[in-house]
Amino acid sequence: MALIVQKYGGTSVGTVERIQEVAKKLIQFQQQGHDLVVVVSAMSGETNRLLALANEVNRHPRGRELDVLLSTGEQVTIALLCMALEQAGVHANSYTGSQVRILTDNTHNKARIMEIDDNKIRADLKQGHIVVVAGFQGCDEHGNITTLGRGGSDTTAVALAAALKADECQIYTDVDGVYTTDPRVVKEARRLDQITFEEMLEMASLGAKVLQIRSVEFASKYNVPLRVLSSFTEGGGTLITAEDPKMEQALISGIAFNRDEAKVTIIGVPDHPGIASQILGPIAKENIEVDMIIQNTAHDSTTDFTFTVHRNDYQNALNILQNTAKELGAKEVIGDDNIAKVSVVGVGMRSHAGIASSMFDTLAKESINISMISTSEIKISVVIDEKYLELAVRALHDAFELEKI
Amino acid sequence: MALIVQKYGGTSVGTVERIQEVAKKLIQFQQQGHDLVVVVSAMSGETNRLLALANEVNRHPRGRELDVLLSTGEQVTIALLCMALEQAGVHANSYTGSQVRILTDNTHNKARIMEIDDNKIRADLKQGHIVVVAGFQGCDEHGNITTLGRGGSDTTAVALAAALKADECQIYTDVDGVYTTDPRVVKEARRLDQITFEEMLEMASLGAKVLQIRSVEFASKYNVPLRVLSSFTEGGGTLITAEDPKMEQALISGIAFNRDEAKVTIIGVPDHPGIASQILGPIAKENIEVDMIIQNTAHDSTTDFTFTVHRNDYQNALNILQNTAKELGAKEVIGDDNIAKVSVVGVGMRSHAGIASSMFDTLAKESINISMISTSEIKISVVIDEKYLELAVRALHDAFELEKI
Repeated sequence: MALIVQKYGGTSVGTVERIQEVAKKLIQFQQQGHDLVVVVSAMSGETNRLLALANEVNRHPRGRELDVLLSTGEQVTIALLCMALEQAGVHANSYTGSQVRILTDNTHNKARIMEIDDNKIRADLKQGHIVVVAGFQGCDEHGNITTLGRGGSDTTAVALAAALKADECQIYTDVDGVYTTDPRVVKEARRLDQITFEEMLEMASLGAKVLQIRSVEFASKYNVPLRVLSSFTEGGGTLITAEDPKMEQALISGIAFNRDEAKVTIIGVPDHPGIASQILGPIAKENIEVDMIIQNTAHDSTTDFTFTVHRNDYQNALNILQNTAKELGAKEVIGDDNIAKVSVVGVGMRSHAGIASSMFDTLAKESINISMISTSEIKISVVIDEKYLELAVRALHDAFELEKI
Repeated sequence: MALIVQKYGGTSVGTVERIQEVAKKLIQFQQQGHDLVVVVSAMSGETNRLLALANEVNRHPRGRELDVLLSTGEQVTIALLCMALEQAGVHANSYTGSQVRILTDNTHNKARIMEIDDNKIRADLKQGHIVVVAGFQGCDEHGNITTLGRGGSDTTAVALAAALKADECQIYTDVDGVYTTDPRVVKEARRLDQITFEEMLEMASLGAKVLQIRSVEFASKYNVPLRVLSSFTEGGGTLITAEDPKMEQALISGIAFNRDEAKVTIIGVPDHPGIASQILGPIAKENIEVDMIIQNTAHDSTTDFTFTVHRNDYQNALNILQNTAKELGAKEVIGDDNIAKVSVVGVGMRSHAGIASSMFDTLAKESINISMISTSEIKISVVIDEKYLELAVRALHDAFELEKI
């Protein structure tokens, strides 16, 4: 008998039939003696439908009103799931984010969870009820509805699991776990039984879009065992936990990649202290997220400064940088939005040298030029021309023998 | 400069274009210097869409979850209307019933408003903002979402007008006012410029479905001037207010009617005290609303007891009554769901005799048989065979010369 928080994404609750399937599944879990708290997303397509409505009325709606609108998506699902459970004779109460309450800051559309009041949930569990909570949403201290941003339902689930000290947080989705890389690119890609939070963070942030990165951070911070499973097929999925020192770690756990990147470079910037923040300040002000940042050693008392952003932010970033270049007296600004990022990730590389050179060798053998390199303790990322992306991922998957257990 | 509460129903906000039209209208009102609080319903069709979803999952969903589901309808509209106002450069904040907060009892699907906190609204108005409130919904003292039942948005508007001591509560709908009778039945039907709360209550409860009856009760209780207008055409609509002693009242204000009725009769009930409550108790327990009740003078120490219910409740009421008849040792139970009710309404009849006989005369001339009669101070209702309904309404409209001003 365990306390389990389960999260079902939009596809898993995309139709009335699927909601009924989820209800059946939940009842089976309950019959096994588990206490269940269930987090659900909006039915698939619903968020886009609502966004399209908003877009018709106002191309740039205020965050506050957008959150009021979007939060209805999950509210519909929680009610329907409770009705399906009731129909099967199991009592369940639904809660919106405000009702729980899941207190967030007031950054509409991208709010962060500050505190969760678990009183109502604990009281319901004590009575043997299943508790159904709307993912993706909360409210600020004034009662304004907030949303956590796309994929925020994962974060809701993990935050609830942390608050309730749940035994496991299970994320049901349309994939059956975390793979060594995207099986659509490398058909030999293999599902991992277990992976560490750190690896998952690197995988997720680099584009293996199984879990929202914030939910993994949250799980890591509060040490909530996190499991990714499929709603549609059987199987134990992938368990994401803290590193286990007894466990022999694989050298490399996976190859992550990301196509949605663009890079911008400001050339010939006077090299003096504070230059990085002068360049990135205006970018941050526009809420553009920067991924890789590279500054090379200066020569002739000027330096070049490159960073990558989401492709959607490319034009915006370029424009901002043109202004900055003028102000700083830089030489010029260039950019490229036909790039991709490929990364090898693994906690095993901590204790092994030579991963970087194996990676570069492999790419060189395929005549793939590397235009940026960035490393962390457990990953090495390179930026390459987008057209070589699949080739690079396959070559690396093969070189590190990821198809073998 | 006045404080006006306006309510726009589902048809008035049925599409994005119509929401934009409402926004334009509001801005004009604001430019005239008025403070505006706007109550909106779900976009037309939305509530039915949600009900259909619920129905697929559970034929008898629990009221609590149904309210969670249905309340999303208005929540979508408030957000979209605020976005439309913002797009036109006018600041507006939206509030769900829980956010206002509109405190209700906990009778899900049919909750009653207990208290309204007007702090947020007053603060917004002070800053020159338009305030947009979701109609039809509130929350109970535990924060559970409640709804007021169909048409409840009118009640929300009137309750807000009362709480804010608004100068007028304007209900925008798809008709341009209250008519002497349904123009689809009598083409000479005339729009009334003014009508009293009492008359409106009798008209509304008898089937002139312009306003929800509870909203008129509320307006009457708190003396909120209530105006019914069309969203789509110009015109002053019909003003509903307390009776003005200076005003010469028309004898009859209108002819109301209702097709959705059925009658049930329990025959040969032993005539002793408490019999009425023994008969109606089990009916009330099933939440069946009873309209007319008639019990005739007893003879042979038994009596007959007849009442009318909504046609949807007919079978249910018959079944209950069969049981009651057995318990009480009554003779038999009969019923008819092919009936209609026609009423003449007017505060003027207080000071004039002979209205009843004119009414009965008129019907007799058309050979229409009357099967039940019920009277109040300002209305006389008769139950007739449904097939004579139109004929009866036309004859009465003509007899009381309602086409003339």
